[in-house]
Amino acid sequence: MNEKKEMIFGIRAVTEAILSGTEIDTILLKKDMQSEVADDLLAAIRRYHVTVKRVPVERINRLTRKNHQGVVAFVSQISYTNLGTLVQTLFEEGKNPFVVVLDGITDVRNFGAIARTCECAGVDCVVIPKHGSVTVNSDAVKTSAGALLTLPVCKESNIEATIEYLRNSGFHIVAATERGDKEYTEADYLMPTCLVMGAEDRGIPAGHLALCDERVRIPQRGTVSSLNVSVAAGVLIYEVLRQRNS
Amino acid sequence: MNEKKEMIFGIRAVTEAILSGTEIDTILLKKDMQSEVADDLLAAIRRYHVTVKRVPVERINRLTRKNHQGVVAFVSQISYTNLGTLVQTLFEEGKNPFVVVLDGITDVRNFGAIARTCECAGVDCVVIPKHGSVTVNSDAVKTSAGALLTLPVCKESNIEATIEYLRNSGFHIVAATERGDKEYTEADYLMPTCLVMGAEDRGIPAGHLALCDERVRIPQRGTVSSLNVSVAAGVLIYEVLRQRNS
Repeated sequence: MNEKKEMIFGIRAVTEAILSGTEIDTILLKKDMQSEVADDLLAAIRRYHVTVKRVPVERINRLTRKNHQGVVAFVSQISYTNLGTLVQTLFEEGKNPFVVVLDGITDVRNFGAIARTCECAGVDCVVIPKHGSVTVNSDAVKTSAGALLTLPVCKESNIEATIEYLRNSGFHIVAATERGDKEYTEADYLMPTCLVMGAEDRGIPAGHLALCDERVRIPQRGTVSSLNVSVAAGVLIYEVLRQRNS
Repeated sequence: MNEKKEMIFGIRAVTEAILSGTEIDTILLKKDMQSEVADDLLAAIRRYHVTVKRVPVERINRLTRKNHQGVVAFVSQISYTNLGTLVQTLFEEGKNPFVVVLDGITDVRNFGAIARTCECAGVDCVVIPKHGSVTVNSDAVKTSAGALLTLPVCKESNIEATIEYLRNSGFHIVAATERGDKEYTEADYLMPTCLVMGAEDRGIPAGHLALCDERVRIPQRGTVSSLNVSVAAGVLIYEVLRQRNS
């Protein structure tokens, strides 16, 4: 399904990957990496705003026996789309856009499952935060049943700014939260819609919730369980389609 | 979460488990088991209609190093409910029942995920076929987030007869199929409803489909993917709730 390498090792190889425009999800850098030996690498990381995690060298040793020199880059398995350009194109084409923001989903399978539903439902794009979100690896692509290779995905470094941008562009921002003040069927999805789904455990950060136009909940009558986030996303996404089609 | 044993080994132990009413999903019996040595066991299996698979002894050897004597029983992790009794009770209590039939779902995680959605949405019971369906093991219970320990599950040996029974009891039988002749939002779920979901790959068997009152589809606009069955179930189940609440 996908021929991209998952990981790149070594100071020189990683530096060149960054400079040549390879989409990198995260770089692991050993904690005590000396800046002298990795001057070009660190400059490239700064210039291209690549996400870096400083880790004990043992963690990198567990990933490979190659001569990694204290650095490994996880290559994104997909190409990202620029949100601004995409939104402009959608409006120019006379479409009524539907964007889904996954605000902190960390489980790769849930992410893949939601992407699959989005592609299937004709959602225009999925937005994920640059930091603290899933790594779009081959498991995500597999769980999405290939949807991630077609569905536009945008990676944004600041979700607050993204919500503001979409709202200023005429989007109605609807947040899904168990503490929503209305049921999801009571909101209006006929205008350009941005649906925000939160993390599996903590939901949407309060600061982001406050920026949304509406906060909706899915009624839950059970006593032991709450909906899985990928099922909840499916229910909400198809309510948008239902309202727009009826 | 659950204290039940997953497996019981040995002719005597399995026989006694059956006779004492332990709910058994399946028994694996070595292919060349001599009937003389297992008279009581085979009689108990026949009397209680337990599902048996004849397998090479090596398969049982891989499961345990205990002295299994060529027989292992997989104990169901849940207690099953009698459909007839449950339906009668629901009507007596003045409820408008909502039953979900999982006609051949074989993936344990999909089954668990659907059970979780059902419990959450207040579905009255889930029906699974006795043969050719999931084994309700501890993985299913775990994926269901515990929902399977609360949600009534009925195990029926003949799904055609079950559909006929529910229809004669006043249920409207709605089948979910990609080749449905109307969209799922166009069906009417206000009366007692039985929703039939098919297997991940083959869908609902043609013979069962013909017995249903309506065949509905979920619109799919994507080019690469179809909905995951647990997401599809979520969309349909919540449409029933939406119509009943509005």
